[in-house]
Amino acid sequence: MRAVATEGSPDFVPVPERVAVFDNDGTLWCEIPTVQLVFALDRVKALAPQHPDWRTRQPFKAALDGDMAGIGAAGQRGLVELVMATHAGMSTEAFARLVADWIGTARHPKFQRPYTRTVYQPMLEVLALLRGHGFRSFIVSGGGVEFMRVFAEPVYGVPPEQVIGSTIRTEFHIPQGSRPELLRLPEMDFVDDGPGKPVAINRFIGRRPIAAFGNSDGDMQMLQYVTGAGGRRLGLLVHHDDAAREVAYDRQSPFGRLDRALDAAPAAGWSVVSIQREWQRVFPDD
Amino acid sequence: MRAVATEGSPDFVPVPERVAVFDNDGTLWCEIPTVQLVFALDRVKALAPQHPDWRTRQPFKAALDGDMAGIGAAGQRGLVELVMATHAGMSTEAFARLVADWIGTARHPKFQRPYTRTVYQPMLEVLALLRGHGFRSFIVSGGGVEFMRVFAEPVYGVPPEQVIGSTIRTEFHIPQGSRPELLRLPEMDFVDDGPGKPVAINRFIGRRPIAAFGNSDGDMQMLQYVTGAGGRRLGLLVHHDDAAREVAYDRQSPFGRLDRALDAAPAAGWSVVSIQREWQRVFPDD
Repeated sequence: MRAVATEGSPDFVPVPERVAVFDNDGTLWCEIPTVQLVFALDRVKALAPQHPDWRTRQPFKAALDGDMAGIGAAGQRGLVELVMATHAGMSTEAFARLVADWIGTARHPKFQRPYTRTVYQPMLEVLALLRGHGFRSFIVSGGGVEFMRVFAEPVYGVPPEQVIGSTIRTEFHIPQGSRPELLRLPEMDFVDDGPGKPVAINRFIGRRPIAAFGNSDGDMQMLQYVTGAGGRRLGLLVHHDDAAREVAYDRQSPFGRLDRALDAAPAAGWSVVSIQREWQRVFPDD
Repeated sequence: MRAVATEGSPDFVPVPERVAVFDNDGTLWCEIPTVQLVFALDRVKALAPQHPDWRTRQPFKAALDGDMAGIGAAGQRGLVELVMATHAGMSTEAFARLVADWIGTARHPKFQRPYTRTVYQPMLEVLALLRGHGFRSFIVSGGGVEFMRVFAEPVYGVPPEQVIGSTIRTEFHIPQGSRPELLRLPEMDFVDDGPGKPVAINRFIGRRPIAAFGNSDGDMQMLQYVTGAGGRRLGLLVHHDDAAREVAYDRQSPFGRLDRALDAAPAAGWSVVSIQREWQRVFPDD
């Protein structure tokens, strides 16, 4: 960081080009369980009285029964169905209010604290260090952009325009006698994962970042894009190997699988950070 | 501007929320002829030797003959075909170099100066005034985002991450033995015009701007979205009514038509600026 931020250094990078990108789930906060999925399941429960058919219809029945195996069995299609039923059919502002209300009260089942306190203390320190060296940090996540924007600023200090994520379609709409709004439609627009991440970085930022932080194979192309461009670059993978203080998972995990990217790290020069060995504190309240 | 930027004012807006959005063609620079279309036609001429069939195939024949009526007759589909043949099939970096080379030498046919000098002097002053009051200005244009990003920073002082535009699909790609890149595919992704503008503003910025500048019906929903939200807001339309110093066009023009938005302006409280009566200087070198 000193090398790129010190004027006169051979690796000096002007402030506007000091851009860092961060995955969110598993990189900035705990992803077991996936927070947005818990939100979706809680929404299914809240909406169930208006949908009596959900009691017998999959994947909704599994969601209502808390049957994670049943949800898993419904596959990607089932997951999309749950998201559309709970994330669409309202204005973007109404959705942001739902997320804000939920995240203000929901608690992580294992760590017994708000999800916003399952962010990683060392990563908050990295964000602060980058800010102190003239960097702007963007979140580039498979999570829904309008879900993350609700808490990214208070929790990470990352403003809405620096949050990039997956999107569903929205439509401009002026309700009779009311202010214009955007209506969330039950249709996927863009999945910001894997090779989609460099695509989104180019589309939204229009510059190639010089530092990238991830934790799974879904971040591999983002790290390749950032560190493969020559010049002083940083690629970093968080390795979840601490079952006692957090969760241990990598090559076999259905969520946040870290396998190909872990194999690619040494040759690519990416740092692999062991939570167990290298993080003094995992969560801010530890 | 004083009202929203003065602490203690009832209309005070904190700096991070001081966001302004600008259409580009016809709002920040001259759009007759549409600069990106001229670029596409020049590219057709440059590429013609590699495509002998273009001499007899529409819309390429019309493009090579400079036959604007023929291009018009090919309609939206013909236009898309011209854009795809000239804007895709290369990396984003190679495309940016093509645009930079072209815009460095091409000259406006009527005003005999580089297109980057057919920007509007009063709008440069507005951009500077906004910057001086803590605003960030975003371009939100139907033009191609990777076309505009090449000149938006040197010409307007608007950095790449504040340029929003139409996009074609791109694909992440690692060429054998070379650095990772994004390949531009001959397929439309998003048209940032009309109701697409508020959609893009929400997707990219995630905040509702408080000032919007446009000049055509394609900017109408953007102005509605920005000014229809309550609070102190500014909506402004540039009216091209100066045939002597620029070009006069509005309700009947095939490009940059200003008709419905002009009718809507009084009730919506949008300022309509007459170039003829209100602009002392049109271009910086006048």
